[in-house]
Amino acid sequence: MADIARMAGVSVSTVSRALSGGASVAAITRIRILQVAEATGYNVNESARNLRHRRTSAVEVIIPAEPETRRVLHDPVIADMLDSIADALSKRHHDLLLSKTPPWSTEIPYNSIISGRADGIILIGQGPWRRDIRDFARQHNAVAVWGGHFPEDDYTVVGSDNVEGGRLATAHLIARGRRRIVFFGDPDHPEEGLRLAGCRQALGEAGLSLPETHVIRTASDGPPSEDTGGQLHAAADQLARGCLTRGHLTRGRAARSGPDFDGVVAASDMAALAVLAALGTAGLSVPDDVAVTGYGDVAAARTAQPPLTTIDQHIREGGRRLVQTVLDMAAGITPSATHHILPPDLIVRQST
Amino acid sequence: MADIARMAGVSVSTVSRALSGGASVAAITRIRILQVAEATGYNVNESARNLRHRRTSAVEVIIPAEPETRRVLHDPVIADMLDSIADALSKRHHDLLLSKTPPWSTEIPYNSIISGRADGIILIGQGPWRRDIRDFARQHNAVAVWGGHFPEDDYTVVGSDNVEGGRLATAHLIARGRRRIVFFGDPDHPEEGLRLAGCRQALGEAGLSLPETHVIRTASDGPPSEDTGGQLHAAADQLARGCLTRGHLTRGRAARSGPDFDGVVAASDMAALAVLAALGTAGLSVPDDVAVTGYGDVAAARTAQPPLTTIDQHIREGGRRLVQTVLDMAAGITPSATHHILPPDLIVRQST
Repeated sequence: MADIARMAGVSVSTVSRALSGGASVAAITRIRILQVAEATGYNVNESARNLRHRRTSAVEVIIPAEPETRRVLHDPVIADMLDSIADALSKRHHDLLLSKTPPWSTEIPYNSIISGRADGIILIGQGPWRRDIRDFARQHNAVAVWGGHFPEDDYTVVGSDNVEGGRLATAHLIARGRRRIVFFGDPDHPEEGLRLAGCRQALGEAGLSLPETHVIRTASDGPPSEDTGGQLHAAADQLARGCLTRGHLTRGRAARSGPDFDGVVAASDMAALAVLAALGTAGLSVPDDVAVTGYGDVAAARTAQPPLTTIDQHIREGGRRLVQTVLDMAAGITPSATHHILPPDLIVRQST
Repeated sequence: MADIARMAGVSVSTVSRALSGGASVAAITRIRILQVAEATGYNVNESARNLRHRRTSAVEVIIPAEPETRRVLHDPVIADMLDSIADALSKRHHDLLLSKTPPWSTEIPYNSIISGRADGIILIGQGPWRRDIRDFARQHNAVAVWGGHFPEDDYTVVGSDNVEGGRLATAHLIARGRRRIVFFGDPDHPEEGLRLAGCRQALGEAGLSLPETHVIRTASDGPPSEDTGGQLHAAADQLARGCLTRGHLTRGRAARSGPDFDGVVAASDMAALAVLAALGTAGLSVPDDVAVTGYGDVAAARTAQPPLTTIDQHIREGGRRLVQTVLDMAAGITPSATHHILPPDLIVRQST
């Protein structure tokens, strides 16, 4: 450090403060010191610095999954969210620790907050673990979750207003003249269950109802499968084949007078894309025979055949809010259990 | 530590060794000590431990991208690779630091190896940065790269045999009777350029050639776009429209006698899916009018309409090899510039 101080023409304590990120050093001085330090090959040891400052400048992002049972990043919503969080943390000069191991797992005796590896934890998705998340978040100061809002959950959630999103999609189908609407999704998935509630709400407002036979469940029993895409396509094929064998839907005008269904509210874009493919294979036309809405506005929704009407849940804004929230919580700024609800937007394309 | 030692019935030095992950403590003793430590709320400070051991137990995974210009995780190959690396590092009890900032960027004065945050760096993809990667890898001991193999690159690469993959896909189309084949991809992308070389090789072996007009470039000039999907679809639409306006291809048998093209070797599954969509919109039948192959075997290839013939590049195995390689390098086991070439496999489905 003495060498760097001499070469940069400043005191040793200024070098020390500059290298440790102290705010008391003028930016231009700090840049000069960093340049000199780099030129001399001086290594700033982050572990030493973290220990001295009792901070880590890292946030752990966990996409909770059963070990090895699910390729979580197959889901483009999760991939987009992680991408946005990475950009936001990078802008805030924080490292991102990525993990798929639920922090309440008994396999790991110390989570990243306890062990001092991270200042806070962001969980992407609640899966079947809402109770575990409640317990975990009570024990730790800086935990923020992307997912659905439930009054009984007292942890901090950033998420789309899923009820409103489900309502918007369904009301749009009703406005397009559709009356026999099915919901295609997983009612046990926290966010998709809320979207189903919004779907029922819109139908109720129009004096319509959603019989249980019109809730098409996309998830098999048991733990989440590695091949969610395959599950969705199997359910969609059954949906499309079912309406063909019952003879209710045929191409063109007959379909619109048939007794079966003429609209599908899919609980995610991936589910909607599976429905589009299955309807196409069955020779049914979208939107003439059946109008379809998705949820999420992932990239594949724009390039679908036909392009997919969907709900924009503002994933990238969600990622920024999660980072802001967890860093505020780590700094003691935001009270826990503050909810951040992002209003969703309807994006109308050719599938409706 | 003295309290934990008393409660666990062991010596203080055994507690110290157990908490610092020392191998000299019997597993069952270590578990008991960790349980007692957890019960008493004892915090193992990882920063302190890392400093003492001069190791970090972390690997940085970088998906290099221009700042904010590209949503890198939109690419399912990259998402699958990251997922596999996360699982492999978790099994080896290492943390994963995720970043999109190229470590040779002048914006960051210290990369994670220099600063002691990580033992090694895995780069997913070479982009336009092969020269930067060469310089960077010469300065650091433990850098492993997923990408294409080039004789002039002296850094450690794990990757698919892209030339062989391109050759396999093209030879398969030729075996299916296709003679007028186009390559659809980005010749300037390191891996896609190698796949093009393999495509030319297979055509040469069959006494055929690939005129420049049959190399359809999917990338626009300039920096990588945020919306790669849109670019691919625009290029695919042009391909499909072009063959329609020239009147060479029409539905059914006429197509097979037309002079234009009857096979597409797409350089990635995403590119192939864009081609399938554009051909469908143009009223062309796959594989009757045009047979299409992809590269990568991502999940969407299996559920495409029709399901896509493609090259399995064994992404998850690649992720495991990257982790093994970078940890070996960090431990001084593997000499640098060892290449790991994964033999690709042809997966035949209904698109050919």
